[in-house]
Amino acid sequence: MKKILILLLLLPAFSFAQNHEANIKKIFDAELSQGHTYENLRYLTKNIGHRLAGSPSAAAAVEWTRQLMESYGFDTVYLQPVMVPHWVRGGKDIVRITNSEKHGSVELTALALGNTQGTGPGGLIGEVIEVKSLEELRNLGTKTQGKIIFLNGVMDPTKIDTFEAYSGAVGLRGAGASEASKLGAKGVVIRSVTNRIDDVPHTGNQRYNSDYPKIPAIAISTQAAELLSKLLSEQPNLKLYLESHGQMLEDKLSFNVIGEIRGSEIPGEIIAVGGHLDSWDVGEGAHDDGGGCMQGIEVLRLYKELGWKPKRTIRAVMWMNEENGLRGGQEYARVAKEKGEKHIAAIESDSGAFLPLGFSSTGTEEQRAKLLSWKPYFLPYQIWNLDRPGGGADIGPLRDQGLILIGLKPDSQKYFNYHHTAADVFEAVDQRELELGAAAMAALVYLLEQEGI
Amino acid sequence: MKKILILLLLLPAFSFAQNHEANIKKIFDAELSQGHTYENLRYLTKNIGHRLAGSPSAAAAVEWTRQLMESYGFDTVYLQPVMVPHWVRGGKDIVRITNSEKHGSVELTALALGNTQGTGPGGLIGEVIEVKSLEELRNLGTKTQGKIIFLNGVMDPTKIDTFEAYSGAVGLRGAGASEASKLGAKGVVIRSVTNRIDDVPHTGNQRYNSDYPKIPAIAISTQAAELLSKLLSEQPNLKLYLESHGQMLEDKLSFNVIGEIRGSEIPGEIIAVGGHLDSWDVGEGAHDDGGGCMQGIEVLRLYKELGWKPKRTIRAVMWMNEENGLRGGQEYARVAKEKGEKHIAAIESDSGAFLPLGFSSTGTEEQRAKLLSWKPYFLPYQIWNLDRPGGGADIGPLRDQGLILIGLKPDSQKYFNYHHTAADVFEAVDQRELELGAAAMAALVYLLEQEGI
Repeated sequence: MKKILILLLLLPAFSFAQNHEANIKKIFDAELSQGHTYENLRYLTKNIGHRLAGSPSAAAAVEWTRQLMESYGFDTVYLQPVMVPHWVRGGKDIVRITNSEKHGSVELTALALGNTQGTGPGGLIGEVIEVKSLEELRNLGTKTQGKIIFLNGVMDPTKIDTFEAYSGAVGLRGAGASEASKLGAKGVVIRSVTNRIDDVPHTGNQRYNSDYPKIPAIAISTQAAELLSKLLSEQPNLKLYLESHGQMLEDKLSFNVIGEIRGSEIPGEIIAVGGHLDSWDVGEGAHDDGGGCMQGIEVLRLYKELGWKPKRTIRAVMWMNEENGLRGGQEYARVAKEKGEKHIAAIESDSGAFLPLGFSSTGTEEQRAKLLSWKPYFLPYQIWNLDRPGGGADIGPLRDQGLILIGLKPDSQKYFNYHHTAADVFEAVDQRELELGAAAMAALVYLLEQEGI
Repeated sequence: MKKILILLLLLPAFSFAQNHEANIKKIFDAELSQGHTYENLRYLTKNIGHRLAGSPSAAAAVEWTRQLMESYGFDTVYLQPVMVPHWVRGGKDIVRITNSEKHGSVELTALALGNTQGTGPGGLIGEVIEVKSLEELRNLGTKTQGKIIFLNGVMDPTKIDTFEAYSGAVGLRGAGASEASKLGAKGVVIRSVTNRIDDVPHTGNQRYNSDYPKIPAIAISTQAAELLSKLLSEQPNLKLYLESHGQMLEDKLSFNVIGEIRGSEIPGEIIAVGGHLDSWDVGEGAHDDGGGCMQGIEVLRLYKELGWKPKRTIRAVMWMNEENGLRGGQEYARVAKEKGEKHIAAIESDSGAFLPLGFSSTGTEEQRAKLLSWKPYFLPYQIWNLDRPGGGADIGPLRDQGLILIGLKPDSQKYFNYHHTAADVFEAVDQRELELGAAAMAALVYLLEQEGI
């Protein structure tokens, strides 16, 4: 009789472990019926809005996510201090054609790149040379002296994964200003890095080379870029007026926000899951990356709702400053190493809150094989592609700590309609797609905490 | 020497047939770089708009698609006459709570179902009984006498394929008015068939049973349904005022629009591909099913652009009257049989112009196995699921003619945000997702005309 009693007491834990398929269905059912992800994202985007590192709204997002995780009763919720760059746009960005024979003065829809030094209120004016690539720019040599360089690189529309096309085009944005400055140019105008033709300009990060003057770099919409290119081909002496007001201020104290449910059996093994809390200073940072953050918190909330205790420790992490510094990801990895924490996996959702199609990963062959062996658990949810390489920006700095890095891979077709723009707002996110992503991450975290990797 | 010359002459055809992978890449590259699908859809939706069978705009859509296909130089373009039902909404639909103790008079966002007989300008007023299912309605028995029945069935959020959830809920819409009338009710109000909570009402088809009075049936938005349900639970004597103006007029002459490129080797074997040209009388019929129609035409246009001649005959078909009669699909199948045409496959795109994930099919085991064997050709485009059952509404009537019926299966998560509503407009369609669907259909048509099935 006593034996039977003991067996009965053991039963729930046993059936839990043995019944992954049913438990994963519980995760999806709970999320699709009564998930919090969407309403949390609404709050973050509508009540806090965009949140560039160092801004008051980034501080608000830190405090709100801390309170949110505390309200869910996670075992530990804490802030991890990190110094972040503090860039401010400072005013309205202007790119204007001043002398079009056809149209006179033409305003081009513009948005300065992040981390740029502005022209100041006086602006600057100059003739324009168009190039399609950094190579073409370098080949110009001294012709660039005193000119404004128009970097008109196009994303390859034939790449099915739009992130591949982005990788092929974004080099111009990151290094264009420095390369142009090295050759004596006085400013850079860049075609927005998107595969869509519209009038929405896209900001994004760029890095100055400290050996050369910090010249202004301003993105214009793809429609504006097409127009400028056309007018330049008809009238090569076209002049542009640029005005921007960007300034890099002193580094500022900010925080990664961390919430944790301790493992009941192997608490020393940690699975981190989340996204980056900062965004650019336009739109609402909904797809990039409010959705990923809310999905990360939801993973742990689902454990509370379902009344589950994980075997291993699971941790929701809101990394700070992915967009213009990656300081949060770097600090998180440094502290983990310093403390001797053992992460077995880190999962990042930072490719938009679209329909989840699979996971990418970076790890050992054994780790990746184990991940791939779980594919049958995901197929009922139309998540089918677990065999792609790649991890995530914020989790990248953990890469030498022996864990597997995993990225949620959603449908990529619409990501660059919104990326780094005023259009990246709550309304651009579909509730079910956001929820399916949260459930996919929760299912993966569940398998990881149960089975290890 | 002569032999070598003959071999060289044969080479293009030979390498064409042997090089399916490369040719399918040509299809995708051409479509994603310079496809016409998106701009054609813009014209259809913005210049013609919604196009209910029998309406002037449906006639405009017939003539415009005929001209479009002629402009592309297809071998044959013709209209296939078909008599269609001609329903008109006739005015603004009204559902109003008249006696809420809390709020007084409350307007609920409403849209009469298709094919319904309106209340006329005098409207009608009555007490309300809420039910969740047809079964619950039937169990009410004589309590329904003189009442308005509120059919408040909810789509199951835990179904991953939203079309499954739709199938589970749409029975109420199709049969609710007749079932209620049979029990003596005088009107029906129905919760919109969507998984989204918003204030957009969804129309759709319903069928009267001619044995009972044709009572009005009006959809209200899901937000309105939630409110009505809440107020009814607090105040069971709530009354509704209904007003609608629907009328079924005499059948009208309309047309299926057909464009064809004749096969160079086996012209007697036909592959039909397309969607339905009609839509409901709200919004612009963009996802349902302007996108599918434009994709069907694009399949043939890509052959012209690439300079290809198909081995078998390929045919773009714009079926008429899917929404409230299916007469076009029925007539197409009848004529095909009468003429002794041999279709080997029919492909329909009518699940929205979202990211294509695969194809569903209905056919023999051999046909379905052959379709499935082509999966490796689609995987580079992230089209992975070729093993689902199902075909399409318009191609359904062909089912006894020995061919395989195939449906394009895109991401289904957002379909019921737009289905049969004023929100189904051009702006709800993503260019790349629409184009990927067109290319997927073209690739499948290519394999079918090359290999047979």
